[in-house]
Amino acid sequence: MKLDMLVGDRFRERPADCVIDSHALMVRGGYIKYVANGIYSSYPVLRRVTRKIEQIIREEMDAIDGQEVLFPVAMPAALWRESGRYTSVGRELARFGDRNGNDMLLGMTHEEAAVHLTREYGQTYAKYPFMVYQIQTKFRDELRPRGGLIRTREFTMKDAYSFHTTKEDLDAYYMRCYGAYERIFTRVGIPQAIAVTSDSGMMGGSASYEFILLSSVGEDTVVTCGNCEYRANMEAAECVVRNAPGAGDTQVKKVHTPGTKTIDEVCAYLGLPVTQSCKAVIYQKNATDAYVVVFLRGDMEVNETKLGNFLGEEFRPAILEDNEPAGAIPAASASAGAVPAASASAGAVPAASASAGATPAASASADAVPGGMLTAGFIGPYRLFTPGLTVLIDRSLKDAVNLCCGANEKDFHYIGVSMERDCGDVQYLDLAKAAEGGVCPRCGAPSLRVSRGVEVGHIFQLGDKYTKSMGMSFMDEHGNLRHPVMGCYGIGVGRLAAAVCEARHDEYGPVWPVSIAPWHTHLCCVRANDDRIKTFADDIYAQLLAEHIEVIYDDRAVSAGVMFSDADLIGAPYRVIVSPRNVDSGCCEIVSRDKTVNIKVNAAETASALKAMLRASD
Amino acid sequence: MKLDMLVGDRFRERPADCVIDSHALMVRGGYIKYVANGIYSSYPVLRRVTRKIEQIIREEMDAIDGQEVLFPVAMPAALWRESGRYTSVGRELARFGDRNGNDMLLGMTHEEAAVHLTREYGQTYAKYPFMVYQIQTKFRDELRPRGGLIRTREFTMKDAYSFHTTKEDLDAYYMRCYGAYERIFTRVGIPQAIAVTSDSGMMGGSASYEFILLSSVGEDTVVTCGNCEYRANMEAAECVVRNAPGAGDTQVKKVHTPGTKTIDEVCAYLGLPVTQSCKAVIYQKNATDAYVVVFLRGDMEVNETKLGNFLGEEFRPAILEDNEPAGAIPAASASAGAVPAASASAGAVPAASASAGATPAASASADAVPGGMLTAGFIGPYRLFTPGLTVLIDRSLKDAVNLCCGANEKDFHYIGVSMERDCGDVQYLDLAKAAEGGVCPRCGAPSLRVSRGVEVGHIFQLGDKYTKSMGMSFMDEHGNLRHPVMGCYGIGVGRLAAAVCEARHDEYGPVWPVSIAPWHTHLCCVRANDDRIKTFADDIYAQLLAEHIEVIYDDRAVSAGVMFSDADLIGAPYRVIVSPRNVDSGCCEIVSRDKTVNIKVNAAETASALKAMLRASD
Repeated sequence: MKLDMLVGDRFRERPADCVIDSHALMVRGGYIKYVANGIYSSYPVLRRVTRKIEQIIREEMDAIDGQEVLFPVAMPAALWRESGRYTSVGRELARFGDRNGNDMLLGMTHEEAAVHLTREYGQTYAKYPFMVYQIQTKFRDELRPRGGLIRTREFTMKDAYSFHTTKEDLDAYYMRCYGAYERIFTRVGIPQAIAVTSDSGMMGGSASYEFILLSSVGEDTVVTCGNCEYRANMEAAECVVRNAPGAGDTQVKKVHTPGTKTIDEVCAYLGLPVTQSCKAVIYQKNATDAYVVVFLRGDMEVNETKLGNFLGEEFRPAILEDNEPAGAIPAASASAGAVPAASASAGAVPAASASAGATPAASASADAVPGGMLTAGFIGPYRLFTPGLTVLIDRSLKDAVNLCCGANEKDFHYIGVSMERDCGDVQYLDLAKAAEGGVCPRCGAPSLRVSRGVEVGHIFQLGDKYTKSMGMSFMDEHGNLRHPVMGCYGIGVGRLAAAVCEARHDEYGPVWPVSIAPWHTHLCCVRANDDRIKTFADDIYAQLLAEHIEVIYDDRAVSAGVMFSDADLIGAPYRVIVSPRNVDSGCCEIVSRDKTVNIKVNAAETASALKAMLRASD
Repeated sequence: MKLDMLVGDRFRERPADCVIDSHALMVRGGYIKYVANGIYSSYPVLRRVTRKIEQIIREEMDAIDGQEVLFPVAMPAALWRESGRYTSVGRELARFGDRNGNDMLLGMTHEEAAVHLTREYGQTYAKYPFMVYQIQTKFRDELRPRGGLIRTREFTMKDAYSFHTTKEDLDAYYMRCYGAYERIFTRVGIPQAIAVTSDSGMMGGSASYEFILLSSVGEDTVVTCGNCEYRANMEAAECVVRNAPGAGDTQVKKVHTPGTKTIDEVCAYLGLPVTQSCKAVIYQKNATDAYVVVFLRGDMEVNETKLGNFLGEEFRPAILEDNEPAGAIPAASASAGAVPAASASAGAVPAASASAGATPAASASADAVPGGMLTAGFIGPYRLFTPGLTVLIDRSLKDAVNLCCGANEKDFHYIGVSMERDCGDVQYLDLAKAAEGGVCPRCGAPSLRVSRGVEVGHIFQLGDKYTKSMGMSFMDEHGNLRHPVMGCYGIGVGRLAAAVCEARHDEYGPVWPVSIAPWHTHLCCVRANDDRIKTFADDIYAQLLAEHIEVIYDDRAVSAGVMFSDADLIGAPYRVIVSPRNVDSGCCEIVSRDKTVNIKVNAAETASALKAMLRASD
């Protein structure tokens, strides 16, 4: 088509509200139009890109025996009540009432719909395995949409659901889908996307991989090993800490530590390395307000995903009396105020180990300090006794000796504490974040790297969470009724487009790969107001169309600067330039968007030259 | 693919709750799964059909210079407040609040989004005309979804919006789109779809065509002329009535008509043809409860769409005291009870012509009956005086003489009333439904036919309704700011699939055309448990795949009856049958779904024979 007909404006200036490059380029290039927070319309340029992405995904899903279906966007609440998610999922699930007063919701994922569609079909083992997928609009009422298409509230997603009679069959299919995802990311131009193990979150289930494009603008944090193939999302990354060996025979001693505000200050005041300290981070359970204290080595941070999985319920950083969130502050040095006694807020809980839900990993009931108060800023595991408190000890403290920790008394710490000797036989949990330079849980080398990345795909093993709750079962070979196990597999189409743009752009615009470029070639007629030039370019346009080459033709009477700047924003992989100088020699210039190609060809051979290049780069 | 992998069950029995054939066949054939009232999931068979329909639509939209975009499903109310539709559209617009308390809605049409997307782009005349379209999910909270995919609450729709600087340009483009629609309906297999003029409803604007597939299961009523090309939706069809000429010199006389319950009974009692009577139909305005009386010839019915367009506000049939809707009953013979005085319900309205909104076409203020009461069942235009009443007279009464009509007094009618002489110079309005055998407003012949049909597409000229209200304007050649005019063009994808099924099926299943069939061929291996037969069929399957013929392969060990019944439900245009008898002669049988072809071909020539047939029928 002709560029002057293309709906959408292009700008030179970077919009002030765009923090990341793909967002800025998609606004500047006339790809997206802001409609509301996290909601965009797509202009034709973007729609051409997303349609190509959708087609690649479709081909790869079909290649692993997927069958395309379509689930509703608007679903009755009754369906999600079957799985329990109508109530368990929070406000990111948009709910509404229809005209007859029925509770409805907008699909943010379709496990329930997939089970609903197939539970009559899948009544006998002979029908298994099968996989259904859709490419459809979803709405997830994100608290913080950001980065243009990187995180939106409404988005197009390919979501696939596979059903199996055995875990082994799911495992095998899961790896087939893993392969399909690798092919998809390679085909759309980001072969560097890596798979990392991840947490399965509200989806439930056991195994889960995220496909991550490493990028400083990503909102996911991933942990990779420089020495082996270990890769995990920070949320799921195991944290291994080796404490320096020591005899642990130092005496426990209470010391006065007035005015120390942070764990670093405490350690500096005492002349100790931070790795020789124990800090406390305090949370409260949402349901009961009961306090949860996590002890971990002073240099580590709590991984709240792991904590949530352990607790199995919602929680929040505890709010101190002056309204500072305790969880964000090294509790051993929190600045002010006493946390009210946990037993008072949480009701009459008889013992430290009896708080609702999770079994506390440790409760130091011997040698307890009198009073039963949590002394914020000075909480330590030694001689701690507070009724109703859940105390969790991270394994970064295992084998730790000669530690400093809060003395459960304002302005005092202990030093010389050795965990095993002084805190008894406690259960150590993996609750800390892996850290840069940390020990790899697979190979044991201290080679962990922490990077940012964009999640471009996610595959889950769901097990029987949905089939069991929704009553889907099949008769097996022996006549027994069993629940099938499921996998689910998602890719956000718009986010993938943005991720490719993020990975492949320069300051002037996206550098689309042939596979998903809005057009393969961008024909520029420089000096289109000169009839001779215009006719020459028109002929080349006709030639490219006749040869079925995707081409956008710029024959506007604008400067070469404007023309090339627009072409950069549209990002077609090859540009064909017709200019007075070229016309004189019967040639045109072919330049690749990534600057690796810059050749002159005889005008008559433009199409064949382009075809050869397109074949080579696709 | 192989049929035994196809997700979805097929049944022999017609489901009891399916009233129309396409609904029953789509349930029986494993096309759709009911999720909630008017909400379905699509199984793979249907998704293959709808994807082909979508592709045909896309090609035809691109061919008329359409550019594909994507609008959001969930839109902020603010956008619809700009056009006024957030409040003017009723409960079919689904509204919800997001997590931050913002009013949101689910798109049922996207005029606002189209203006929003393009109003910066379209600031100068040089950018015009342009058309953008999308294929996207919509939600319309219909009061009465019905007939499977014929009328759903959630549906996939192609909606297109064109923008023009002049009405003439819109007219020209509108006809291009009309042509594209004709091509679309021809390509998907229903060339018999007809275009009828229609009412533009809540879309606003001037011209409007509906594309209708005539079908007894349709919920639209269309009026066509057997003598000329006149075609209109009943909602928009002009009603022309020719009253028999007469002197009109009969005396008006009040007669006692006790116990006459219907207009037919009144006329029978008086020995008059119904065409010589005048009846009253009573409505109430929703906003004020004020009464509206429509007088029309006794054999005619009120066209409520025309009435609504005239009134310009919402109304309902008046409810009599015994709760029978007056509008549904010939008011001249309504059974019981007096309608309360209009002036009492509607508040203090000083004169008959002063009721809110519409200008009454007539108000008989002279020779009024005393009391000012509407005597339900006996209302007539002669000597009627009721303060606050809107009186509308349909043109079926123009030139009528010697009529009987209610005497505005219980159990009495007048006879011998002549409209012109006795009711004065009233404005006659077109408020009646066209009727079978009625006079064609175009050619004048009494050749009107009234039929049922399914609306498969709708094209509107919107004028500047949206561009004006939403502040979209462009600078014209002379430097003046003007509002562009718009057209909009919709096709429901699922409904179109259902309509094609409705038009092309037999008792055994759909007879899909090649263009949108889920597969082109259905390979049946009868006696697949015989290795020799199975190998023969496998070879043909491989041959068809190698030749890129779309094929679904049934190699299940089931009876030929089950196999053929399933094939009928899937409806592929060609069936290839491998059976022991055919194998003996090295042949297979090719049978078309519509029974017009039944040939044997040498096995090796199956693909080439099919290709020739597919080419011929596409």
